[in-house]
Amino acid sequence: MITVLSGGTGTPKLLQGLKEIVDPNDLTIIVNTLENDYFSGVYVSADIDTVLYTMSDMINDELWYGVKGDTFITHERLDEIGCPELLRIGDIDRATKIQKTQLMEEYGLSKAVEIQAEKMGIPSKIIPMSDENSDIKIITDIGELEFHDFLIKHQSQPEVLDIKFSDVSPASGIINSIENSQAVIIGPSNPITSISPILSLDGVKDALRDTYVVAVSPIIGSDSVSGPASKFMKALNIDVSSVGVASLYEDFLDNIVIDNKDADKKQQLNQIVNKVTITNTIMNNLDAKKNLAQIIIDSIP
Amino acid sequence: MITVLSGGTGTPKLLQGLKEIVDPNDLTIIVNTLENDYFSGVYVSADIDTVLYTMSDMINDELWYGVKGDTFITHERLDEIGCPELLRIGDIDRATKIQKTQLMEEYGLSKAVEIQAEKMGIPSKIIPMSDENSDIKIITDIGELEFHDFLIKHQSQPEVLDIKFSDVSPASGIINSIENSQAVIIGPSNPITSISPILSLDGVKDALRDTYVVAVSPIIGSDSVSGPASKFMKALNIDVSSVGVASLYEDFLDNIVIDNKDADKKQQLNQIVNKVTITNTIMNNLDAKKNLAQIIIDSIP
Repeated sequence: MITVLSGGTGTPKLLQGLKEIVDPNDLTIIVNTLENDYFSGVYVSADIDTVLYTMSDMINDELWYGVKGDTFITHERLDEIGCPELLRIGDIDRATKIQKTQLMEEYGLSKAVEIQAEKMGIPSKIIPMSDENSDIKIITDIGELEFHDFLIKHQSQPEVLDIKFSDVSPASGIINSIENSQAVIIGPSNPITSISPILSLDGVKDALRDTYVVAVSPIIGSDSVSGPASKFMKALNIDVSSVGVASLYEDFLDNIVIDNKDADKKQQLNQIVNKVTITNTIMNNLDAKKNLAQIIIDSIP
Repeated sequence: MITVLSGGTGTPKLLQGLKEIVDPNDLTIIVNTLENDYFSGVYVSADIDTVLYTMSDMINDELWYGVKGDTFITHERLDEIGCPELLRIGDIDRATKIQKTQLMEEYGLSKAVEIQAEKMGIPSKIIPMSDENSDIKIITDIGELEFHDFLIKHQSQPEVLDIKFSDVSPASGIINSIENSQAVIIGPSNPITSISPILSLDGVKDALRDTYVVAVSPIIGSDSVSGPASKFMKALNIDVSSVGVASLYEDFLDNIVIDNKDADKKQQLNQIVNKVTITNTIMNNLDAKKNLAQIIIDSIP
């Protein structure tokens, strides 16, 4: 069993390769829920849905959000009638969200996701990090913003001063899954808004200390491969580099995977983490994703 | 000013004709809200939306529900993934419902409908009978059913024993609108589930007594033209005929419009109501709708 910590779009790219080279039955994916919220009457758990769609080959893998080939009739009509929808929800995608909202009201989020994954024919286990509602606020130079307002309405432009997120309890099964795994992979997701919320759950760091943990750096050179990770790291005074990422995970990290371009950081990294794996981490096609996944799997003792 | 009491599909058919022969600026339409409820995370006020779509020429006038030419991508997907949606909500129609839900949370239902009507370019005033949530239960031989469960899931098949609905306060402007109208038209809607809820609002019957009221019978012979009206009338021991309809409205009715087929009921009806107008009330094309509307308007003193 391999457990993957996921959020945003970096880790799903890796999952697309990983599911081709390991038996998906042997994968557990723990997914960030901090940015979940209600939009247009439905519960939107974008990070979870991206994993569901990735694992069922439905993902729009240009945007890493929503369903490939989806239409946007309701979304566009909302625009026309002067009620623009902050998130771009497709018509097929909306059905997923309506179903999840209904299942969640009846069974809670974890069970809702389990039922949806099963209906989508996904053999892997997908666990939301928490069944509790949570909240993340970005403190910026223009004021305190909701995460999606910062990301979409303000296009991640404002200067970030701090990030606040609520304390939630881990969903059942998370600690067990980490403890019973041969290794935990921390994907190349935003370390601050995607991974830290999972790490801060009660018992997660302790469980990680007892498990082999390999992380893929989402930072190459001094910038994030995609998204606002570097902005968030800077705000928290974390060195924007693979070294900064490793230091965040230092407590439990056994192996960091960095890009060839960062090979010169090996020595510095070895002071933080035992093993440094150097390879191509840019996943711009399926072969690159499979290669990276294979190198990660091969690095696990 | 003419005020029309509406609900279901019978009165909207008449409105389609009426708006062609009178200035729509002079029309106020008071609409039943009793069957409103949340579906798929959005507030569904089917009777209101049917009036909005009718007055803006968007109505699917085969079903008298939803938008002409709408697609059903989300609705059909919900079916595919094992989460069937009781009401058939189209993709364009869903946007109307999402917008109304959001406007309602901010401003209340009346104002939400006013904003939507304005955005749709409708010059008439459309007023929901109440801003309060209400409920209607159908007591049947197989148990107590929610209205939409009775109508759609059970296809109006169970035997109806009784109908219960909750007390709500009238929306602001309803009493005024009736009092200031030259006449009130009670359209050929279900007298029990569409019209009675409006009549039972505080002050409505008093206001109607002081105004010229003309009603179109939705019953021809001993059956309703469409829908389960006859079933409901029978359950409440009301004669299923235009005479039964007139007796329901007896308290304030000045003129009943009945179909040519019921001409033989004129004498009996004249014992209940002063004026009986006999004409074709089957509205199977626009001309028939306009003709009926013209005859109603001409009958107003």
